[in-house]
Amino acid sequence: MSYQPPVREHRFLLRDVLNIAQYADLPAFADASDDTVDQILEEAARFNAEVLAPLNAVGDKQGCVWKSDNTVTTPDGFKEAYRALVDGGWPALGADPAWGGQGLPAVVNLAVSEMSSSANMAFSMYPGLTHGAYSAIQAGGSETQKALYLPRLASGQWGGTMNLTEPHCGTDLGLLRTKAVPAGDGSYRISGQKIWISGGEHDLAENIVHLVLARIEGAPAGTRGISLFIVPKFIPNPDGSLGARNSVVCAGLEEKMGIHGNATCVMVHEDATGWLVGEENRGLAIMFVMMNEARLGVGLQGLAQGEAAYQAAAAFARDRLQGRALTGPKNPTGPADSILVHPDVRRMLLDARAILEAGRAFLLWTALCGDLAHHHPDEAQRRRAEDYMGLMTPVLKGYLTDRGFAICSDAMQVHGGSGFTEHFPASQYLRDCRITLISEGTNGVQALDLVGRKLAANGGRAIMTFFAEVDAFVAANAGDAGLKPFVDGLAGAKAQLQDGTMWLMQNGLSNPDNAGAASSDYMHLFGLTGLAYMWALMAKAALARIAGGDADPFYTLKLQVGRHFLERILPVSGGHLAKLKSGSETLMSFPTEAF
Amino acid sequence: MSYQPPVREHRFLLRDVLNIAQYADLPAFADASDDTVDQILEEAARFNAEVLAPLNAVGDKQGCVWKSDNTVTTPDGFKEAYRALVDGGWPALGADPAWGGQGLPAVVNLAVSEMSSSANMAFSMYPGLTHGAYSAIQAGGSETQKALYLPRLASGQWGGTMNLTEPHCGTDLGLLRTKAVPAGDGSYRISGQKIWISGGEHDLAENIVHLVLARIEGAPAGTRGISLFIVPKFIPNPDGSLGARNSVVCAGLEEKMGIHGNATCVMVHEDATGWLVGEENRGLAIMFVMMNEARLGVGLQGLAQGEAAYQAAAAFARDRLQGRALTGPKNPTGPADSILVHPDVRRMLLDARAILEAGRAFLLWTALCGDLAHHHPDEAQRRRAEDYMGLMTPVLKGYLTDRGFAICSDAMQVHGGSGFTEHFPASQYLRDCRITLISEGTNGVQALDLVGRKLAANGGRAIMTFFAEVDAFVAANAGDAGLKPFVDGLAGAKAQLQDGTMWLMQNGLSNPDNAGAASSDYMHLFGLTGLAYMWALMAKAALARIAGGDADPFYTLKLQVGRHFLERILPVSGGHLAKLKSGSETLMSFPTEAF
Repeated sequence: MSYQPPVREHRFLLRDVLNIAQYADLPAFADASDDTVDQILEEAARFNAEVLAPLNAVGDKQGCVWKSDNTVTTPDGFKEAYRALVDGGWPALGADPAWGGQGLPAVVNLAVSEMSSSANMAFSMYPGLTHGAYSAIQAGGSETQKALYLPRLASGQWGGTMNLTEPHCGTDLGLLRTKAVPAGDGSYRISGQKIWISGGEHDLAENIVHLVLARIEGAPAGTRGISLFIVPKFIPNPDGSLGARNSVVCAGLEEKMGIHGNATCVMVHEDATGWLVGEENRGLAIMFVMMNEARLGVGLQGLAQGEAAYQAAAAFARDRLQGRALTGPKNPTGPADSILVHPDVRRMLLDARAILEAGRAFLLWTALCGDLAHHHPDEAQRRRAEDYMGLMTPVLKGYLTDRGFAICSDAMQVHGGSGFTEHFPASQYLRDCRITLISEGTNGVQALDLVGRKLAANGGRAIMTFFAEVDAFVAANAGDAGLKPFVDGLAGAKAQLQDGTMWLMQNGLSNPDNAGAASSDYMHLFGLTGLAYMWALMAKAALARIAGGDADPFYTLKLQVGRHFLERILPVSGGHLAKLKSGSETLMSFPTEAF
Repeated sequence: MSYQPPVREHRFLLRDVLNIAQYADLPAFADASDDTVDQILEEAARFNAEVLAPLNAVGDKQGCVWKSDNTVTTPDGFKEAYRALVDGGWPALGADPAWGGQGLPAVVNLAVSEMSSSANMAFSMYPGLTHGAYSAIQAGGSETQKALYLPRLASGQWGGTMNLTEPHCGTDLGLLRTKAVPAGDGSYRISGQKIWISGGEHDLAENIVHLVLARIEGAPAGTRGISLFIVPKFIPNPDGSLGARNSVVCAGLEEKMGIHGNATCVMVHEDATGWLVGEENRGLAIMFVMMNEARLGVGLQGLAQGEAAYQAAAAFARDRLQGRALTGPKNPTGPADSILVHPDVRRMLLDARAILEAGRAFLLWTALCGDLAHHHPDEAQRRRAEDYMGLMTPVLKGYLTDRGFAICSDAMQVHGGSGFTEHFPASQYLRDCRITLISEGTNGVQALDLVGRKLAANGGRAIMTFFAEVDAFVAANAGDAGLKPFVDGLAGAKAQLQDGTMWLMQNGLSNPDNAGAASSDYMHLFGLTGLAYMWALMAKAALARIAGGDADPFYTLKLQVGRHFLERILPVSGGHLAKLKSGSETLMSFPTEAF
């Protein structure tokens, strides 16, 4: 059985856990009634399962093809699927109605994005990056730029890219060399080489809008001298019709371990015509506006690959007859039992479920914070939501991609030898997923962003608000016998996270290397605590349904997966706490030349 | 810098930690003086670094090519390298002198095998499987079969394979259908399809000797009716010259995620001529004689890929200038600092070292048990060594491949975006390593073998002997202040392992699903305890050198990596113990149809 979007999970989260109907007064939510959302999810599920999923293996096997005329051909079927995507209005779902978008809440849009990413991650990155370019121009562009570019990016009529990385600089953008020279007519001449540009060239859209970081001649060195430019493949006329071909070309494709269906391009700008976005030397600030969104998207990709891989593994396990149950045959008339009789196979599958179901909740919960940060009428609520959005983003990006990759690996393991062959989808999920631990800042960079920036921002306001919220939940539900294991698990995890946070405050400020040394374990401890909170929220919602007489087995299964989380996932938190407290002395005193 | 065999580590382990010179009286060790071993290690290092390592990427990119005449061409350079391997006498290193081997101890041979596996895993599997065929015939063949086949397999003049798996049966060999019909002349006609046959066809050796599991007509169903056959590609004349081409052919190659340089073949036997090895219906017993050896070899592959990946990551990190240290610039005159200034990069690299260095010790320690089990004059010593060999093999296979893969993933992470491209070796190590978690029995099967068979064998004699050995070490070294953290760490890990063992005895016998549910975490807890013991042994040896006035920084570095193990690797043991004690109720009561 091929990938089936988990609409039932999305509905449960949006309705029972997050109850988005309560925000019906807010602009973005006015058209997001339960029924409308259900309809969108069902249609999205059909589109992604029927149109994008069947092209996933095709994309992996064929990859993109570069020709010496600097064109790139996408795999068979991608062009038609892209047209269907645009015709269906899918890219515009979350865009601003002012620019032709449907203006749906980000929390709903994220559910749809998960489906696309599971169905075909390589394909979904074309509209994904386009949305990134849309956001950058929305954040920093002039009204003229917005009017020209945003409607066409929102619809997917034009594609978009981010041109950040250069061969010698990725994480450290301060080193970048691509230069911009004023042309005297308000435009700039951009020259330089950019690498790892996803969707830098392809045959899906009539134009491609590159958002390019470059240094204006004479600008200060380092990150304070970086500006952002729009460099379109075809220079548009004011009415949006296409003019001259710009001198930005794809000089080749990167050979990669996965996401072969996405063109990862080397882009060469040779006196390409570009237009400044926002102010001179303020390019990074605009990029960072959209960076949180992009990082949340990568966390989602990690989860989405895990979900697709889980589904493939569960389907394989159901059909694979091999050996007998330890407690005696369960399929005595067959040649062997299904491998689902084995506790260790079930362990791998339920490990995946326990993380995926709560990880999805955590992502949607955070995306909802993004909506509230924009739209909530109360300033305190907006601030709280924005604080959470900032705090949780590196956690979700780092934790969910680390775990998503582990889930893909377990999914391959469930397949046994078949998993290592390319006849089954396990290998592609594992290979595609691997980039998510790296892209938009490695998980180490996320961990450092968390402990070095997000924790400390505004005197630790975000984390203290979160602790208070968890404490309030624990106190309010202390008397609920059914919820007790979840409340206890959450309280324990939160206590450990608080302990780790205190340690960081006491040791990380005096010696930043202690913060760096603790960062990855702290991020994982945070991820586990976030998941424990989500499990408590989900268990509460499921128990309420059951208490209300709802006999749908969905709710009892939800509680059982939650118990598995408490028994099998959460217990690793103590190890993370112990490791993060071990400090940096052993690490930093190791002689550099001895590595 | 390309792969450099860790000869210094091997020397330290063989000399200082295992002190193999103490066994000079034993037959296999007579020619294994420290100097001889040093010379062998140096020569092996040169051969593997200079001949095999440069072909690793070539093999990955080109792969093997199958043609419709059923031939398989190996990648450029493999043929020449194979000839150099045979000419150098490398395959014969550990083989019996009676069959032309050099008869070196397994413990020394394993060090050399590690180098080959790191240098070029796909290539090293050709002689690896040949050695497997050698061992099977040595274990069960007639004198005539031994005289004909063993010298040619030992030298590598002929290749060898294991034909076990069929499309519908891997782990559960009782289901196999390949049939054998007596031909009336002492030979059999073998018919059936085998899959995933490593080295089933290639152009490296003049003949290929397939060891084939098949069912003789009329044999009992299940595992009690399986026999083992020799099916040579070319039927040899009694003098070893090649006769007729046998009707066993490669019908195609498997597309795989990695080890592209190794031909993974679909083998079709159509009335192929075969000769019974050992008794009818006793084929599995012979296969299991060599299975432990093969599983130890796969554990070694996992470690070896981790080692090669670590080296690549460390070399990349040294050269990669990006960003600045958290504590201020360390390379102020350069454009940026090396990424080795970052605690989290160091964490990943030292995590790798802490596991690799002790994992290597654990492998050699166990291989030495294999030597002692064969050669020790004292029966109690032989029994103890054989017990350990049986007990530790699934631990080493499962734990070291799980951790080896994680190390490969961390090594990619150190590379950042470069790691995901195929221009750097990180992707190949990760992809090649992934099969080690599956081959020769998935790690779940290893864990089940450990808790279901090895623990219980002989009333738990092996594990009790191991606990007593650790207790004795802890008691004997309790007063050593320098060794104290290592002794404490070991004592703590052993206490947890004993706790987990007790839980298994109390809960696994009454309900085997509890044993199955606990098996993977138990295996990891065992692996950690084994590594803690190895670190204690290594620290003791290093401290003795330092106390003796040896100023080689190798020994102080060894202690520092050991401290990292105690701080950063060992603390996860408590999580494994908690998980294994959570039982099987939640897992097994989850409805099958709900997966």
